[in-house]
Amino acid sequence: MIRIALDVMGGDHAPREILAGAHRALRESRDLFVYLVGTEEALSAFPDHERVEKVPAPEWVEMDETPSEALRRKPRSSIRRAFELVKEGRAGAVVSAGNSGVTYACALFLLGRLPGVSRPAIATVLPTLKNPAVLIDAGANVDCKPNHLLQFAIMGALFSEKILGLRAPRVGLLSIGEEGGKGNFLVKRAHSLLEESSLNYIGNVEGRHIYSGEAEVIVCDGFVGNICLKVSEGVAEALAEMLRREVRRDPLAVLGFGLARRALNRFRRRTDWREYGGAPLLGVNGVVIIGHGRSDARAVRNAIFTARRFVEMGLVEKLKEALDRRKHPSDLQAIS
Amino acid sequence: MIRIALDVMGGDHAPREILAGAHRALRESRDLFVYLVGTEEALSAFPDHERVEKVPAPEWVEMDETPSEALRRKPRSSIRRAFELVKEGRAGAVVSAGNSGVTYACALFLLGRLPGVSRPAIATVLPTLKNPAVLIDAGANVDCKPNHLLQFAIMGALFSEKILGLRAPRVGLLSIGEEGGKGNFLVKRAHSLLEESSLNYIGNVEGRHIYSGEAEVIVCDGFVGNICLKVSEGVAEALAEMLRREVRRDPLAVLGFGLARRALNRFRRRTDWREYGGAPLLGVNGVVIIGHGRSDARAVRNAIFTARRFVEMGLVEKLKEALDRRKHPSDLQAIS
Repeated sequence: MIRIALDVMGGDHAPREILAGAHRALRESRDLFVYLVGTEEALSAFPDHERVEKVPAPEWVEMDETPSEALRRKPRSSIRRAFELVKEGRAGAVVSAGNSGVTYACALFLLGRLPGVSRPAIATVLPTLKNPAVLIDAGANVDCKPNHLLQFAIMGALFSEKILGLRAPRVGLLSIGEEGGKGNFLVKRAHSLLEESSLNYIGNVEGRHIYSGEAEVIVCDGFVGNICLKVSEGVAEALAEMLRREVRRDPLAVLGFGLARRALNRFRRRTDWREYGGAPLLGVNGVVIIGHGRSDARAVRNAIFTARRFVEMGLVEKLKEALDRRKHPSDLQAIS
Repeated sequence: MIRIALDVMGGDHAPREILAGAHRALRESRDLFVYLVGTEEALSAFPDHERVEKVPAPEWVEMDETPSEALRRKPRSSIRRAFELVKEGRAGAVVSAGNSGVTYACALFLLGRLPGVSRPAIATVLPTLKNPAVLIDAGANVDCKPNHLLQFAIMGALFSEKILGLRAPRVGLLSIGEEGGKGNFLVKRAHSLLEESSLNYIGNVEGRHIYSGEAEVIVCDGFVGNICLKVSEGVAEALAEMLRREVRRDPLAVLGFGLARRALNRFRRRTDWREYGGAPLLGVNGVVIIGHGRSDARAVRNAIFTARRFVEMGLVEKLKEALDRRKHPSDLQAIS
């Protein structure tokens, strides 16, 4: 039985959609046990279930609270209680679609970092025209130093190899030109560190190459990474809406899109972020899945399944072992 | 007659596509005169034309050269010669799809900045679900201080008002959360400056709100701005390719898309960057249009027309006048 601690209070559509997502996941998977962590009022809406334990927490964290505020002023929040369940060894993973800064702080504070990692980072798996690509950091660290980017690269490459099963994944540094000399101060310095590393580093990659699959690991600071993800969503949504408007004006196009419905649905499933269900926070001593703030029931269900898969695969043990084994002097120096 | 200096040697598809773009623009517009600046060999391919003057330049700048290198080692480059034509008062604007860092350096060095501007910036006009939005800076300044972002906001708002004709454009600061406290160090500081300004500042906007049209001016540093643009292109291209693959697998969908062809073509024209033809560098004493590095003939034709429109509208005079008139103390302090 895989045991997941779910923060019922986190996310724009909490608690309703979070509970609905748990319901779906439990129905679809018989080897799943869910700790629902939230206020008694929120939890009362969920029917009793043999593979559910309701864990009451009287407080919850809003999306706009700062981590220090939330940790100090709300010691009994649902997100913190979820992490305690992992710390106590009762749950194997935390899933939250809530305030990601607070989730990050709880992970550092209650689970701690893996040896050799100074900055845990969010790894988002993106669909591309070739292999899936890992974008790291997708939002945990907004102000970074060059060696943090090297750490992200190392963790991203290990994740790509050990979890996604890609051999010698190509690592690219997100920048504004393909030549090594191009980029801001941070990226130029990180470029030098990456060139000296033992990674399969292919140099700078531009934003337009993320989705064409030029690299299996895309490295950037968390500010840039998060903006990339949100811009991607925004472009996809705006294009869909613009296309809808054009089609609506033209009866032949309406008919045509009706005929193409099956292909359009397959396309939508392939490109919808809800299908990808949450991103792991790598480098902490536990499985932590950060869901999208806008998560609906489907996204929550997928985030729970992502967490389950990483627990089954032994994500943390694999990462820890691989970090221990790395011997290249410049990498070790950088991550110590 | 509007006179444009065109750098024939700049861009991934130079000189062929650049010349082809000039040819199209000249054919479509009778009040256009083009200085073609490039090597004699490149220019020899262009037929003689009454509204063309060929200006030979023996050197050209590659895409990967640094500005200081290019300015020092290639005093007779085509891009530099194009700027001299504006400086001499013969041409009203420069158009180049070449190395944008070198174009920026030539603009500073040969044309100079407008009074009160310390960092000229690239303003890209983006289609959204509502009004067109100006993204500034789209790539000229990769490492910025908070008051540079304030300057970009001021220039972007003036551009939106005076050139795009929008009243009291809403100015948003690109960040990773809507709350003012969220973002990296640079953005948090810039947020405070923008709050004190007399602009119609609406606070942080997230990446996914760029294309939904939440703000008419989106402010960011040039590194983030350029990545946003390139990611947007990449998403649009990858989605189109994924959709194509799905449709190809399904005969009904192929038929359906055939019926929808007219709507699809209209959609493509609305969303293709080639239609938008180059972005102005704001804050320098002249009209400078920076074309996309991948420009084909159509993109070059559009960039020339963009330059022509800005010359006709008196972009530089309007911006200069509006900058002079600004009286709000905190803004003046910041841009001095």
